[in-house]
Amino acid sequence: MIVVKVGGSDGIDRSEVCRDITSIWEEEQRIVLVHGANAETSRIANSLGHPPKFVTSPSGMTSRFTDRRTLEIFEMVYSGLANKGWVEELQKLDVPAVGLSGIDGRIFEGRRKAHVRSVEDGKVKIIRGDHTGTVDKVNRDLLTLLLQAGYLPVLTPPGASYDGEAINVDGDRAAAMVASELEASVLLILSNVPGLLSRFPDENSLISEIAVEDIDESMQFAKGRMKKKVLGVAEAIRGGVPRVVLGDARKDHPVSRALAGEGTVIELRSKSGRSQQ
Amino acid sequence: MIVVKVGGSDGIDRSEVCRDITSIWEEEQRIVLVHGANAETSRIANSLGHPPKFVTSPSGMTSRFTDRRTLEIFEMVYSGLANKGWVEELQKLDVPAVGLSGIDGRIFEGRRKAHVRSVEDGKVKIIRGDHTGTVDKVNRDLLTLLLQAGYLPVLTPPGASYDGEAINVDGDRAAAMVASELEASVLLILSNVPGLLSRFPDENSLISEIAVEDIDESMQFAKGRMKKKVLGVAEAIRGGVPRVVLGDARKDHPVSRALAGEGTVIELRSKSGRSQQ
Repeated sequence: MIVVKVGGSDGIDRSEVCRDITSIWEEEQRIVLVHGANAETSRIANSLGHPPKFVTSPSGMTSRFTDRRTLEIFEMVYSGLANKGWVEELQKLDVPAVGLSGIDGRIFEGRRKAHVRSVEDGKVKIIRGDHTGTVDKVNRDLLTLLLQAGYLPVLTPPGASYDGEAINVDGDRAAAMVASELEASVLLILSNVPGLLSRFPDENSLISEIAVEDIDESMQFAKGRMKKKVLGVAEAIRGGVPRVVLGDARKDHPVSRALAGEGTVIELRSKSGRSQQ
Repeated sequence: MIVVKVGGSDGIDRSEVCRDITSIWEEEQRIVLVHGANAETSRIANSLGHPPKFVTSPSGMTSRFTDRRTLEIFEMVYSGLANKGWVEELQKLDVPAVGLSGIDGRIFEGRRKAHVRSVEDGKVKIIRGDHTGTVDKVNRDLLTLLLQAGYLPVLTPPGASYDGEAINVDGDRAAAMVASELEASVLLILSNVPGLLSRFPDENSLISEIAVEDIDESMQFAKGRMKKKVLGVAEAIRGGVPRVVLGDARKDHPVSRALAGEGTVIELRSKSGRSQQ
């Protein structure tokens, strides 16, 4: 079982990712795709006159502040435009893709955080009315049902709160939870960088390997959206996924390359320390 | 098995429909919901600076002209905002809803019509670049898989062409096909009118019953979006669905009312002629 997370930043070639998944699917037929839609969501939100607002937590994590209107725009782009775009691309290649959000069958279920702490001008403020949360549970039964029937699940936020409300959840951490629950042999987290960079944004500073015991320490190199990816890595490894690769979705054969170890590899039982190219 | 189609016109109370479905679900657990999102799609299209364009076929059917950008907006609203809105409402009531579009697993599959014939100024014009089509096949296996596992499928256009492209398909006719394929005992088509009206828009002119042999003739009373609903009625009856009701989604208990025969009832083996209130 392979879980592939593909980000929603600009520069990612969806067609190329899908062609690559298709060739792997012909062999493996045990793939779950999780995708984001971050950049397009911000564009649509601007077009609709409801520009995105980002908040930075005291621990330095940046996330989208999700009021109800933002949640609706988020659903339009993640669950509508992007999810059906991925499914269409795969269907055109005869892969039997089925697109679902985390609220469908509560595939991603967790706790809503109705307020967030945001650092503004050096002060911590409490902002209410947020529709975000964490993924604590994955509906493994529904995913297994689809996989066993020969479908490729294509998953995206939002998730569901324990009360059934839609909540904005982090796609990387959701993918990590899916990989753990499905006992995947590998989780690939692909985005618009080559992997974890020791001197972001210098793409020649790729960290090609991280020993499991060094994951937490490696967080110091993670900037912006990479922070949640490294959190996802840590959660997947703790959840029993033996191999995680942070790879580049902008290249040809991006999935095969990451499977082959191109990017930043984090492996359970890795004996070597961190090596830098 | 009950198939409920709820339109996407203004005035429909989604919460009330979901509460009613929930009470029926507790007894029946064999329900498929199909929904539209027409009015909201036009609003979002206007907000995004790509206003809707409607075409009228030589036979008098009006439909949305769907260029690629329109298809994307359509997916945002139908498969994103509306579909996840319906699923959320049902999940809040503890109904295990799973929202899918017709492209997912090719639930609605059919032929793309790349051009449409449109009557403009009394002349028939050919307009190319359309992304619409018909539903010729329903993925009964996937729907049965979900129903047997205890899920309530919540379906919406678009569908998939035989090449796997997303195509705008008519929700009423798709619902009729689903009802036929699943051998539903009844198909309810709920919208923002009481049923088929003999003097549209006079709501006191409800046709309470149509004999099967009179369906084609009753098309003369159908105006605007009601035409495709009457086509859907005919297709469902021809497909073996023994009972179809055109009901009002604006009332309290709209599903129970339609099930009880409030609206326009079309029944196989109906012996009486058309009666008017």
